[in-house]
Amino acid sequence: MTPGAVRAAGARIAPFVRVTPLLSDPALDRLAGRRVFVKAECLQHTGSFKYRGATAALTALAPEMLARGVVAFSSGNHGQGVARAASERGVPAVVVMPADAPAVKVDRTRAFGAEVVFYDRARPEDRAAIAARLAAERGLTLVPPFDHPEVIAGQASVGTEIAAQAAGLGLDGAEVLVPCGGGGLAAGIALALAMDAPGFRVRTVEPATHDDMARSLAAGQRRANPPGRASLCDAILTPEPGELTFPILARLAGPGLGVSDDEALAAIAAAHRHLGLVAEPGGAVALAAALSGRVAGDGPLVVILSGGNVEGSLLARALAMGAPA
Amino acid sequence: MTPGAVRAAGARIAPFVRVTPLLSDPALDRLAGRRVFVKAECLQHTGSFKYRGATAALTALAPEMLARGVVAFSSGNHGQGVARAASERGVPAVVVMPADAPAVKVDRTRAFGAEVVFYDRARPEDRAAIAARLAAERGLTLVPPFDHPEVIAGQASVGTEIAAQAAGLGLDGAEVLVPCGGGGLAAGIALALAMDAPGFRVRTVEPATHDDMARSLAAGQRRANPPGRASLCDAILTPEPGELTFPILARLAGPGLGVSDDEALAAIAAAHRHLGLVAEPGGAVALAAALSGRVAGDGPLVVILSGGNVEGSLLARALAMGAPA
Repeated sequence: MTPGAVRAAGARIAPFVRVTPLLSDPALDRLAGRRVFVKAECLQHTGSFKYRGATAALTALAPEMLARGVVAFSSGNHGQGVARAASERGVPAVVVMPADAPAVKVDRTRAFGAEVVFYDRARPEDRAAIAARLAAERGLTLVPPFDHPEVIAGQASVGTEIAAQAAGLGLDGAEVLVPCGGGGLAAGIALALAMDAPGFRVRTVEPATHDDMARSLAAGQRRANPPGRASLCDAILTPEPGELTFPILARLAGPGLGVSDDEALAAIAAAHRHLGLVAEPGGAVALAAALSGRVAGDGPLVVILSGGNVEGSLLARALAMGAPA
Repeated sequence: MTPGAVRAAGARIAPFVRVTPLLSDPALDRLAGRRVFVKAECLQHTGSFKYRGATAALTALAPEMLARGVVAFSSGNHGQGVARAASERGVPAVVVMPADAPAVKVDRTRAFGAEVVFYDRARPEDRAAIAARLAAERGLTLVPPFDHPEVIAGQASVGTEIAAQAAGLGLDGAEVLVPCGGGGLAAGIALALAMDAPGFRVRTVEPATHDDMARSLAAGQRRANPPGRASLCDAILTPEPGELTFPILARLAGPGLGVSDDEALAAIAAAHRHLGLVAEPGGAVALAAALSGRVAGDGPLVVILSGGNVEGSLLARALAMGAPA
């Protein structure tokens, strides 16, 4: 993962991705007791940052490989990103998704013309095997959700944008809170900030029930989550940190943070009330950490609101909780 | 309403307002059968464009008048805009609101420190009288919701931004669809576009049940709505066009458009699905018009998504309807 790879991916995807706004609001500053800036990746195409990495991966393929099509496994957002990126290039896409993925994510993946194949989330080893079999049978290229150099380099564009948008805001020393499943987004942002805004430090945020990255960073080596735990944060429930992402974060990130499902729902309500944004639970964990007061210090925080693909019923549940003024 | 007044207001409010993004999505283009660009004013501070006009009005006041405070009557969004603009300047604000205003708007107005006084929407003459009495008793300055030169000049900044953001997109000849109550936003945008992008044409969009502006434009003189009609589009239910706004729109706007409540709800679902945005019914009517296919021609459309302050229950109802892919 060289600076050149990050720059090259950023240039390839620039014609396709939205530069998402970096938003602030006095109420959020007051609630967090410090300045808070929210990078609204829920406004990215397909409703999450995943479209960046998917586009970076597809645009890195040789034309004859791209033409045969791609396959991905995904809880939903990566699948949508790959499906859209494939659709834009007129090539087939197959997405392997858990059978309990939110219907909104399944529907939207199919709406981009992708074929959806289900697996049982209780047996996660199936998904990679299914994807590998499809790749072999049909000559498809596998686009992994996070542990892939071009995917990480694509997600890094979020960090490149933050460095540019934060210039002049006096944010040197800011901590950048990033929702973390496998760590592709956090690793990419960490790489970009090391290049363009080295005063910033990435902190990963996970559901407290699935804090494999936090425990891995503390231990200095990869740790897995115990099986069988549940969380509303479907987008960021991964078995363990990636082989590529972990060393990057071990080198560049601070200690990991964890939040509860209720804190994630409260952050959804706050994002709606104070920023007019729709977040999904996994996309709201970094804002939840900022509002929970559990990030030490009083320096500025940059929060990635990484996705917004939430079921209407769950959104209504979160909004019914209300948000403090 | 001179170009100088529009430029001056834009310069005064620039340090405070958010430049909101102009978003597009292939799915919206496909659904509308033409290119569609959405100006996301639901991402403005206080969740609607009203903060622009309120800030323009307050920054135009002499210091000794500003210090005594302001009063506004509003279905909710203008009240929030005035309350926040007053709070930012440390001056008192009183907002006269209909007793049936959405609780979310009442709560948010109060959260900015404003005093809320209710009136009965069935007797709309009360609200101006109540506001005038408060102004006289307490020495407050009335900030009207739309029929005021500085308010119109503040809303014009939406048009100034569109002209800058649309440069290079090949949108000459675009129609600009604007949600319309009293016409302050539409008139302001029309003035700004006449200066900066004269190839664009404003079209007002109203609830079909409250199409006073469309009928007034057709008749060449102001027409009122019959009393007693209901609509979910609470933000844009006004008795008749403004005395200042109507002549501007009669000179610069094309024929007015109307949509149903169900079309507005479907547009809320589409804004969430394809742009990740939260719209309120009155804020979604222009998008509804674009998706309804009732705007003649196939040239590009710019749609103002003017507000997002919606009750959670109504948002959930709209999202449960689903949106086409």
